[in-house]
Amino acid sequence: MKKLYKQAGVSIEENDYLIPRYRTISKTATRPEVINEIGTFSGLFKLKKYTNPVLVASTDGVGTKVMLAKQYNTLDTIGHDIVNHCVNDILTSGAEPLFFLDYLATNGLTKQQKLKIVQGIADACKKNNTALLGGETADMNDLYPKGEFDLAGTIVGVVEKNSLIDTKSIKPRDSILALPSNGLHTNGYSLARKALPKRLNNKDRTLLGEPLKQALMRSHPSYLNDLKPHLAVIKGIAHITGGGIEGNIKRILPKNTIAKIDKTTWSIPPIFQLIQKHGKVSDKEMFQVFNMGIGIAFIVNQRHRKQLMRKLPHCIEIGYIA
Amino acid sequence: MKKLYKQAGVSIEENDYLIPRYRTISKTATRPEVINEIGTFSGLFKLKKYTNPVLVASTDGVGTKVMLAKQYNTLDTIGHDIVNHCVNDILTSGAEPLFFLDYLATNGLTKQQKLKIVQGIADACKKNNTALLGGETADMNDLYPKGEFDLAGTIVGVVEKNSLIDTKSIKPRDSILALPSNGLHTNGYSLARKALPKRLNNKDRTLLGEPLKQALMRSHPSYLNDLKPHLAVIKGIAHITGGGIEGNIKRILPKNTIAKIDKTTWSIPPIFQLIQKHGKVSDKEMFQVFNMGIGIAFIVNQRHRKQLMRKLPHCIEIGYIA
Repeated sequence: MKKLYKQAGVSIEENDYLIPRYRTISKTATRPEVINEIGTFSGLFKLKKYTNPVLVASTDGVGTKVMLAKQYNTLDTIGHDIVNHCVNDILTSGAEPLFFLDYLATNGLTKQQKLKIVQGIADACKKNNTALLGGETADMNDLYPKGEFDLAGTIVGVVEKNSLIDTKSIKPRDSILALPSNGLHTNGYSLARKALPKRLNNKDRTLLGEPLKQALMRSHPSYLNDLKPHLAVIKGIAHITGGGIEGNIKRILPKNTIAKIDKTTWSIPPIFQLIQKHGKVSDKEMFQVFNMGIGIAFIVNQRHRKQLMRKLPHCIEIGYIA
Repeated sequence: MKKLYKQAGVSIEENDYLIPRYRTISKTATRPEVINEIGTFSGLFKLKKYTNPVLVASTDGVGTKVMLAKQYNTLDTIGHDIVNHCVNDILTSGAEPLFFLDYLATNGLTKQQKLKIVQGIADACKKNNTALLGGETADMNDLYPKGEFDLAGTIVGVVEKNSLIDTKSIKPRDSILALPSNGLHTNGYSLARKALPKRLNNKDRTLLGEPLKQALMRSHPSYLNDLKPHLAVIKGIAHITGGGIEGNIKRILPKNTIAKIDKTTWSIPPIFQLIQKHGKVSDKEMFQVFNMGIGIAFIVNQRHRKQLMRKLPHCIEIGYIA
């Protein structure tokens, strides 16, 4: 009976084909709290016992990475981008993800292409122990250009009120640690697509060290499993999305504190160097639009610095609070 | 510090202009549970005490009604469509809405147009006592046609487990009651736009009795306040969306029961008659695509029928369970 997925604007035949398959896929990404027996117009999730539960929610899109996903035929991984982006956003509050809902609007994607995208979403949900609680797929042939689609999603997580990451405790001399990004994640694709040439020359290819498709389409990673064991000692987390490293760290800082970032503490990955060179983009704009190699930054007291750097092998210290 | 709204793909100047304004707007649609002081990458909502809280969530779009909203310049009310659609979807489980997040993706909407849409969302949230907890606005000029936009949203509500509407109690001889729709709501716009002529002739205009713009663009209403006082006696609720009256009622029925709908118990509103005539659409397809005058249907035991029909003046009995 469950109408986990809804389809708009498509033929009844296609509906009848897709909805049971969406349901089968979504059942691979579930949790014991999901109530499957009832609920036909919405998803139901029984909240476990919490003392003072705070729900943490975020809606995101993946920008024009969707257009490259179509072009490069990487529809199976674009779902990881949207889910992981959302997971990281609520992780900044210390929240554990509970469930996810997607919005997929298209013109002319085949049934198989739609299923591939939803399967990717479910795979990513599963990896984050998140239930795929529902979604909406809409065919809007008059709105979207033929063959294109847009993908957005909403995540809801939970955290005990006294475990909320409260950035008010951030103080001068605290250390700014970071985990590297693995590419552009989900930001700056409009600029990257304009800047990069269709084909790289030999010199560029050597610098990049991997196919351009691979460098551009790697999925936004989830930092949940890396940071979850250490949330108790973390004073603040900045997910490096649009706005860049300084822009996003600034957003979590208390008044009268600033972040001192030492850009020599990591190397800018070659994909960003290529975008900058071909697009003649200034350093300033590069650091405002792209993550430049930093996926997530988090702030800890000096005395927790060593411990975290030992336990997180890829962790780097990129600066301090002043 | 709160980053209630995120903007992708737009100039930093526009960002700086819009984000504080989105925040101001969203503060008009809040609830005491919203935690404003912290949370920069997501929205925080402190859940009150419940015995066995079940979270109920739904994601929806408004289909190609967005294209008419642009054309007719009714950007201030399209937010009501998406919010109320979502509110009704979770009402089918007996849930009270808690918070809403929107996704607005555009190419070329002006700042004022974006603010008008978000203001409409906030107004509708407020009317439903729902917090506008966050959202994502993305400019994707390469994906969307110039001047167009898409709008989707996600609602999260809550209901005590023992107050969940459990359709398993539906039995033969139960009465199917309904509240009228006020137009197409958010379904069938792709077909309606194709079927209807640009200008109506005099006879059509007399039949319609109001301007075409008004008939097409009236917002999807919320049935929350109508049905909320009566949820304890309601056995099942079907929100009449894509799939029509029978299609949606069927979804909530237990095995071995069917809905007997008497289509003479209400009159098909003139807008549907015009769409059918100009589009040469069969009766069958009309009833599958459109709500045909019925906004929401709900099932009660015979002995509660009179009481509900007295308390809800617009309520009609459209059939029974067999």
